[in-house]
Amino acid sequence: MQTLGDIGELAAIERITRGLPKGQKVIVGPGDDCAVVRPAENASEDLVLTSDPVVAGVHFDTDAAPEAVGHKAIGRALSDIAAMGGEPRWALVDVVAPASTPVSIVDGLYAGMGALASDRGLAIVGGDMAEGPVVEIHVFAIGAVPVGRALLRSGASLGDRLFATGALGGSRLGRHLRVEPRLEEGCFLRDWATAMIDISDGLASDLHHLTDMSKLGCDLNLDHIPISDAARRLEGEEAPLDHALYDGEDFELLFTVPQSRCEPFVAAWRAAFELPCADIGCMTSEPGIVRCLHEDGAESTLRRNGYAHF
Amino acid sequence: MQTLGDIGELAAIERITRGLPKGQKVIVGPGDDCAVVRPAENASEDLVLTSDPVVAGVHFDTDAAPEAVGHKAIGRALSDIAAMGGEPRWALVDVVAPASTPVSIVDGLYAGMGALASDRGLAIVGGDMAEGPVVEIHVFAIGAVPVGRALLRSGASLGDRLFATGALGGSRLGRHLRVEPRLEEGCFLRDWATAMIDISDGLASDLHHLTDMSKLGCDLNLDHIPISDAARRLEGEEAPLDHALYDGEDFELLFTVPQSRCEPFVAAWRAAFELPCADIGCMTSEPGIVRCLHEDGAESTLRRNGYAHF
Repeated sequence: MQTLGDIGELAAIERITRGLPKGQKVIVGPGDDCAVVRPAENASEDLVLTSDPVVAGVHFDTDAAPEAVGHKAIGRALSDIAAMGGEPRWALVDVVAPASTPVSIVDGLYAGMGALASDRGLAIVGGDMAEGPVVEIHVFAIGAVPVGRALLRSGASLGDRLFATGALGGSRLGRHLRVEPRLEEGCFLRDWATAMIDISDGLASDLHHLTDMSKLGCDLNLDHIPISDAARRLEGEEAPLDHALYDGEDFELLFTVPQSRCEPFVAAWRAAFELPCADIGCMTSEPGIVRCLHEDGAESTLRRNGYAHF
Repeated sequence: MQTLGDIGELAAIERITRGLPKGQKVIVGPGDDCAVVRPAENASEDLVLTSDPVVAGVHFDTDAAPEAVGHKAIGRALSDIAAMGGEPRWALVDVVAPASTPVSIVDGLYAGMGALASDRGLAIVGGDMAEGPVVEIHVFAIGAVPVGRALLRSGASLGDRLFATGALGGSRLGRHLRVEPRLEEGCFLRDWATAMIDISDGLASDLHHLTDMSKLGCDLNLDHIPISDAARRLEGEEAPLDHALYDGEDFELLFTVPQSRCEPFVAAWRAAFELPCADIGCMTSEPGIVRCLHEDGAESTLRRNGYAHF
């Protein structure tokens, strides 16, 4: 019969603590830009976790420069961390590729990933490679926020103003490959925003994610929406505004600020950043309903569809 | 033009990890079963991070049951955590699939993943889905170990005995899909082992990883290697021993214990586990050289090759 003396104090303690509830606290599970977990009961920081696949023929054309594809793969993950108000920490990268892939392409992918990661303080600490039919990058990234301070999609209150950074639409003309994750802005917004999401599927779709999770609606001032030059250059069957609403892959931040704090917020933003930040709407009480307020006084309901896989 | 197939998986991984940025609080970067990071200066636990791709046609036949494929995907990641002496915490899962994939298959994948994850205390907190040409699962898993206690491939000393759990070879007959991650055994071994790796590429290949990282060689007693029934059933062109050495995907633990502690270790192991644990060799001074000691007194040098992508 085994006794405590046989196994020793450390083994005994480990043995009994093994069955106890661990510090594996899940603060936010699936459904936000990142999951949020608490590494220990007394931790000073929560960790935000995100995964982003980038697949040839889906997320990039096969003639895109490998460096740009690598940049995009890391940029998408960093944009998710930015949307939580997080700071980048560590990442793992899985690369899938056919055996016939030129080594120079793989070098290019990693050069693009490494440059952006290094620039933004994300340490790529490992990963894996596997053979597969097309080139893919899967980035798993971990960021950190002060405990309890992660900005969620669900935090908006009735009457909060809605803001968007930068300019939207037309990213297919090239900007989708040149993601500029809004990390500094995201950290800054921890002191101001009540809810936040990054615009990856398109303003219309991502705004609905935010209203759904916050159990609110929104009045959207169409003439306040910042439209990119690329969206204007694409004008044809679709108006520039439609590109801004539905194109996606803008990787800008969409967030809410309490009405009472908007004036000091706008002043603080302008003092901190050159990047524009537009007040485009107001949170309303009817869950999931986004009402478009047109410049001429007309009203319509915003359709949801942005980019969707399958 | 040089391709991935020309240079092989290990050369490809070394090539790309060379240039990656290292960051704060990275205890162990690429090259072990998991990366090891420290979430805070005063943390009581280090985190171990691993990513594992499972690709249709490469890691599983397309006629494999989806539940079994899901089980394997989570099992591989848990086996990496076990090899560090870690306890499972959180995971993200990316699933890639053609748009034509029946929902029942995706349900089956997640059912298989969920059942094993839940059974082993791994919380699946998020992930992503994307369209792609074949079904793939990418599991990103995080485990925890007491600070500084992660078991590395590099920790073996001259004279340490080499042990392997379970029985090896023939996993293609089905066991590769029924991964049983050796998590309890891995935690137990924190008190005994000096170096550890899980057997995924095959004993021959993974032993070389351990000797390379520990800058030692090994004398391997061929007649002590535990050979599985499946390896014996496969006997044909290759002997059962060759299956045990080269097949891979055994997901057993390979580890070293100081000579002076072997007797109490073996007694403690037997008291704790029914799973066999075999003493199969001894660490020697000639870096990277694994000498095979045959039952008849003959000697040979072990070739390296186990399973390699590309």
